[in-house]
Amino acid sequence: MTSAHEVVAAYWAAAGARDWNAFGALLADDVIYRGPQAREQVRGRDSYIRFNVEGFRYDWHLTVQRIVGEGQRAASWVEFTGPEGTQPGLCFFDLAGDGKIALITDFWPEPYEPPASRAHLVERY
Amino acid sequence: MTSAHEVVAAYWAAAGARDWNAFGALLADDVIYRGPQAREQVRGRDSYIRFNVEGFRYDWHLTVQRIVGEGQRAASWVEFTGPEGTQPGLCFFDLAGDGKIALITDFWPEPYEPPASRAHLVERY
Repeated sequence: MTSAHEVVAAYWAAAGARDWNAFGALLADDVIYRGPQAREQVRGRDSYIRFNVEGFRYDWHLTVQRIVGEGQRAASWVEFTGPEGTQPGLCFFDLAGDGKIALITDFWPEPYEPPASRAHLVERY
Repeated sequence: MTSAHEVVAAYWAAAGARDWNAFGALLADDVIYRGPQAREQVRGRDSYIRFNVEGFRYDWHLTVQRIVGEGQRAASWVEFTGPEGTQPGLCFFDLAGDGKIALITDFWPEPYEPPASRAHLVERY
Protein backbone atom coordinates (compact mmCIF):
# COMPACT_ATOMS: atom_id res chain seq x y z
CA MET A 1 0.00 0.00 0.00
CA THR A 2 1.39 3.38 -1.00
CA SER A 3 1.38 5.95 1.81
CA ALA A 4 -0.45 9.27 1.54
CA HIS A 5 2.97 10.95 1.64
CA GLU A 6 4.11 8.91 -1.38
CA VAL A 7 0.89 9.61 -3.29
CA VAL A 8 1.33 13.36 -2.84
CA ALA A 9 5.03 13.18 -3.76
CA ALA A 10 4.01 11.37 -6.96
CA TYR A 11 1.25 13.94 -7.58
CA TRP A 12 3.70 16.87 -7.52
CA ALA A 13 6.32 14.96 -9.52
CA ALA A 14 3.74 14.18 -12.23
CA ALA A 15 2.45 17.77 -12.29
CA GLY A 16 5.98 19.15 -12.52
CA ALA A 17 6.76 16.78 -15.40
CA ARG A 18 3.41 17.50 -17.13
CA ASP A 19 2.91 13.74 -17.08
CA TRP A 20 -0.88 13.90 -17.10
CA ASN A 21 -1.29 10.13 -17.42
CA ALA A 22 0.67 9.54 -14.23
CA PHE A 23 -1.14 12.49 -12.63
CA GLY A 24 -4.56 11.13 -13.56
CA ALA A 25 -3.72 7.66 -12.29
CA LEU A 26 -3.42 9.13 -8.77
CA LEU A 27 -6.92 10.64 -8.83
CA ALA A 28 -10.27 9.08 -7.96
CA ASP A 29 -12.77 9.12 -10.83
CA ASP A 30 -14.89 11.58 -8.88
CA VAL A 31 -12.07 13.65 -7.41
CA ILE A 32 -13.11 17.08 -6.18
CA TYR A 33 -10.78 20.07 -6.30
CA ARG A 34 -11.64 23.15 -4.23
CA GLY A 35 -10.00 26.55 -4.07
CA PRO A 36 -11.68 28.15 -1.04
CA GLN A 37 -10.31 31.65 -1.68
CA ALA A 38 -12.31 32.07 -4.92
CA ARG A 39 -14.75 29.25 -4.08
CA GLU A 40 -13.70 27.45 -7.26
CA GLN A 41 -14.57 23.78 -7.65
CA VAL A 42 -13.73 21.14 -10.27
CA ARG A 43 -15.36 17.72 -10.22
CA GLY A 44 -14.05 14.55 -11.86
CA ARG A 45 -10.68 13.34 -13.07
CA ASP A 46 -10.98 14.49 -16.67
CA SER A 47 -12.18 17.96 -15.71
CA TYR A 48 -9.42 18.30 -13.17
CA ILE A 49 -6.71 17.29 -15.63
CA ARG A 50 -8.14 19.79 -18.11
CA PHE A 51 -8.10 22.48 -15.39
CA ASN A 52 -4.41 21.84 -14.84
CA VAL A 53 -3.49 21.65 -18.53
CA GLU A 54 -5.60 24.57 -19.78
CA GLY A 55 -5.84 26.76 -16.69
CA PHE A 56 -2.14 27.63 -16.45
CA ARG A 57 -0.91 28.22 -19.98
CA TYR A 58 2.46 29.69 -19.15
CA ASP A 59 5.84 28.48 -18.06
CA TRP A 60 5.80 27.40 -14.44
CA HIS A 61 7.74 25.15 -12.13
CA LEU A 62 7.45 24.19 -8.52
CA THR A 63 9.59 22.96 -5.66
CA VAL A 64 8.21 20.91 -2.80
CA GLN A 65 8.96 22.37 0.64
CA ARG A 66 7.01 19.92 2.82
CA ILE A 67 4.83 16.86 2.48
CA VAL A 68 3.18 15.43 5.57
CA GLY A 69 1.04 12.29 5.32
CA GLU A 70 -0.97 10.42 7.93
CA GLY A 71 -3.42 7.64 7.17
CA GLN A 72 -5.66 8.81 4.34
CA ARG A 73 -4.74 12.49 4.71
CA ALA A 74 -1.81 14.59 3.64
CA ALA A 75 -0.74 18.20 3.35
CA SER A 76 1.84 19.83 1.12
CA TRP A 77 3.59 23.16 0.84
CA VAL A 78 5.11 23.91 -2.53
CA GLU A 79 6.71 27.04 -3.95
CA PHE A 80 5.23 27.78 -7.36
CA THR A 81 7.10 30.01 -9.80
CA GLY A 82 5.26 31.51 -12.77
CA PRO A 83 5.31 34.78 -14.74
CA GLU A 84 4.39 36.80 -11.64
CA GLY A 85 7.10 35.38 -9.40
CA THR A 86 7.19 32.75 -6.70
CA GLN A 87 4.27 32.05 -4.38
CA PRO A 88 3.58 29.39 -1.76
CA GLY A 89 0.84 26.87 -2.52
CA LEU A 90 -0.68 24.83 0.31
CA CYS A 91 -2.83 21.77 -0.28
CA PHE A 92 -4.74 19.40 1.93
CA PHE A 93 -5.51 15.99 0.45
CA ASP A 94 -8.11 13.40 1.43
CA LEU A 95 -7.59 9.95 -0.05
CA ALA A 96 -10.23 7.32 -0.78
CA GLY A 97 -9.92 3.81 0.66
CA ASP A 98 -8.08 2.64 -2.46
CA GLY A 99 -5.40 5.31 -2.03
CA LYS A 100 -6.65 7.54 -4.87
CA ILE A 101 -6.92 11.27 -4.24
CA ALA A 102 -10.59 12.10 -3.58
CA LEU A 103 -10.48 15.72 -2.36
CA ILE A 104 -7.91 18.47 -2.84
CA THR A 105 -8.26 21.76 -0.95
CA ASP A 106 -5.87 24.30 -2.39
CA PHE A 107 -4.74 27.61 -0.85
CA TRP A 108 -2.58 30.39 -2.33
CA PRO A 109 -1.59 32.94 0.32
CA GLU A 110 -0.36 36.32 -0.91
CA PRO A 111 2.06 38.81 0.64
CA TYR A 112 0.66 41.52 2.90
CA GLU A 113 1.98 44.39 4.97
CA PRO A 114 2.72 43.48 8.59
CA PRO A 115 -0.09 44.69 10.89
CA ALA A 116 1.00 47.76 12.87
CA SER A 117 -0.85 46.43 15.93
CA ARG A 118 1.74 43.72 16.44
CA ALA A 119 4.84 45.35 14.92
CA HIS A 120 6.45 45.68 18.38
CA LEU A 121 6.14 41.91 18.88
CA VAL A 122 7.92 40.71 15.73
CA GLU A 123 11.07 41.16 13.72
CA ARG A 124 11.24 40.96 9.90
CA TYR A 125 13.18 38.32 8.04
CA MET B 1 6.22 9.47 22.90
CA THR B 2 3.53 11.90 21.85
CA SER B 3 2.94 12.03 18.08
CA ALA B 4 3.30 15.22 16.06
CA HIS B 5 -0.46 15.05 15.46
CA GLU B 6 -1.12 14.99 19.21
CA VAL B 7 1.31 17.85 19.85
CA VAL B 8 -0.47 20.05 17.31
CA ALA B 9 -3.91 19.07 18.63
CA ALA B 10 -2.72 20.10 22.11
CA TYR B 11 -1.27 23.34 20.68
CA TRP B 12 -4.60 24.42 19.21
CA ALA B 13 -6.55 23.28 22.29
CA ALA B 14 -4.26 25.33 24.54
CA ALA B 15 -4.46 28.39 22.26
CA GLY B 16 -8.24 28.15 22.09
CA ALA B 17 -8.43 27.90 25.89
CA ARG B 18 -5.88 30.74 26.38
CA ASP B 19 -3.98 28.25 28.53
CA TRP B 20 -0.58 29.82 27.93
CA ASN B 21 1.18 27.54 30.40
CA ALA B 22 0.05 24.45 28.50
CA PHE B 23 0.79 26.25 25.22
CA GLY B 24 4.33 27.18 26.30
CA ALA B 25 5.06 23.64 27.50
CA LEU B 26 4.69 22.44 23.89
CA LEU B 27 7.29 24.89 22.57
CA ALA B 28 11.07 24.55 22.35
CA ASP B 29 12.97 27.25 24.27
CA ASP B 30 14.24 28.62 20.95
CA VAL B 31 11.05 28.11 18.95
CA ILE B 32 10.86 30.18 15.78
CA TYR B 33 7.56 31.48 14.39
CA ARG B 34 7.46 32.74 10.80
CA GLY B 35 4.67 34.38 8.85
CA PRO B 36 6.00 34.35 5.28
CA GLN B 37 3.33 36.67 3.88
CA ALA B 38 4.55 39.67 5.90
CA ARG B 39 7.97 38.13 6.61
CA GLU B 40 7.27 38.36 10.34
CA GLN B 41 9.43 36.35 12.74
CA VAL B 42 9.32 35.74 16.48
CA ARG B 43 12.13 33.92 18.29
CA GLY B 44 11.92 32.18 21.62
CA ARG B 45 9.13 30.76 23.78
CA ASP B 46 8.49 33.84 25.89
CA SER B 47 8.39 36.16 22.88
CA TYR B 48 6.07 33.82 21.04
CA ILE B 49 3.66 33.55 23.97
CA ARG B 50 3.66 37.34 24.23
CA PHE B 51 2.98 37.59 20.47
CA ASN B 52 -0.09 35.39 20.92
CA VAL B 53 -1.33 37.12 24.09
CA GLU B 54 -0.71 40.73 23.02
CA GLY B 55 -0.92 40.52 19.23
CA PHE B 56 -4.59 39.57 19.03
CA ARG B 57 -6.42 41.63 21.65
CA TYR B 58 -9.95 40.88 20.55
CA ASP B 59 -12.44 38.09 20.87
CA TRP B 60 -11.50 35.16 18.65
CA HIS B 61 -12.09 31.45 18.43
CA LEU B 62 -10.95 28.74 16.12
CA THR B 63 -12.07 25.33 14.91
CA VAL B 64 -9.63 22.71 13.70
CA GLN B 65 -10.40 21.39 10.20
CA ARG B 66 -7.41 19.09 9.67
CA ILE B 67 -4.30 17.99 11.50
CA VAL B 68 -1.82 15.75 9.69
CA GLY B 69 1.30 14.51 11.44
CA GLU B 70 4.20 12.40 10.26
CA GLY B 71 7.41 11.84 12.19
CA GLN B 72 8.64 15.22 13.42
CA ARG B 73 6.45 17.23 11.07
CA ALA B 74 2.81 18.22 11.04
CA ALA B 75 0.40 20.53 9.25
CA SER B 76 -2.87 22.03 10.37
CA TRP B 77 -5.79 23.86 8.83
CA VAL B 78 -7.92 25.84 11.25
CA GLU B 79 -10.75 28.28 10.71
CA PHE B 80 -10.16 31.41 12.76
CA THR B 81 -13.06 33.72 13.62
CA GLY B 82 -12.37 37.26 14.80
CA PRO B 83 -13.92 40.72 14.40
CA GLU B 84 -13.43 40.64 10.62
CA GLY B 85 -15.07 37.25 10.08
CA THR B 86 -13.77 33.75 9.52
CA GLN B 87 -10.51 32.98 7.71
CA PRO B 88 -8.51 29.80 7.16
CA GLY B 89 -5.15 29.55 8.88
CA LEU B 90 -2.60 27.00 7.69
CA CYS B 91 0.46 26.02 9.69
CA PHE B 92 3.41 23.76 9.11
CA PHE B 93 5.21 22.54 12.22
CA ASP B 94 8.71 21.13 12.65
CA LEU B 95 9.36 19.37 15.96
CA ALA B 96 12.68 18.97 17.73
CA GLY B 97 13.95 15.54 18.74
CA ASP B 98 12.29 15.86 22.16
CA GLY B 99 8.88 16.47 20.59
CA LYS B 100 8.77 20.22 21.32
CA ILE B 101 7.68 22.58 18.56
CA ALA B 102 10.80 24.17 17.06
CA LEU B 103 9.50 25.94 13.93
CA ILE B 104 6.02 27.18 13.00
CA THR B 105 5.34 28.50 9.51
CA ASP B 106 1.98 30.22 9.43
CA PHE B 107 -0.10 31.20 6.39
CA TRP B 108 -3.34 33.21 6.18
CA PRO B 109 -4.86 33.04 2.69
CA GLU B 110 -7.44 35.68 1.80
CA PRO B 111 -10.40 35.58 -0.59
CA TYR B 112 -9.86 36.66 -4.19
CA GLU B 113 -11.88 36.93 -7.37
CA PRO B 114 -11.72 33.83 -9.59
CA PRO B 115 -9.30 34.39 -12.49
CA ALA B 116 -11.20 34.93 -15.75
CA SER B 117 -8.60 32.87 -17.61
CA ARG B 118 -9.89 29.66 -16.04
CA ALA B 119 -13.52 30.55 -15.40
CA HIS B 120 -14.66 28.07 -18.10
CA LEU B 121 -12.87 25.25 -16.26
CA VAL B 122 -14.46 25.64 -12.84
CA GLU B 123 -17.77 25.95 -11.08
CA ARG B 124 -18.38 28.03 -7.94
CA TYR B 125 -19.37 26.52 -4.64
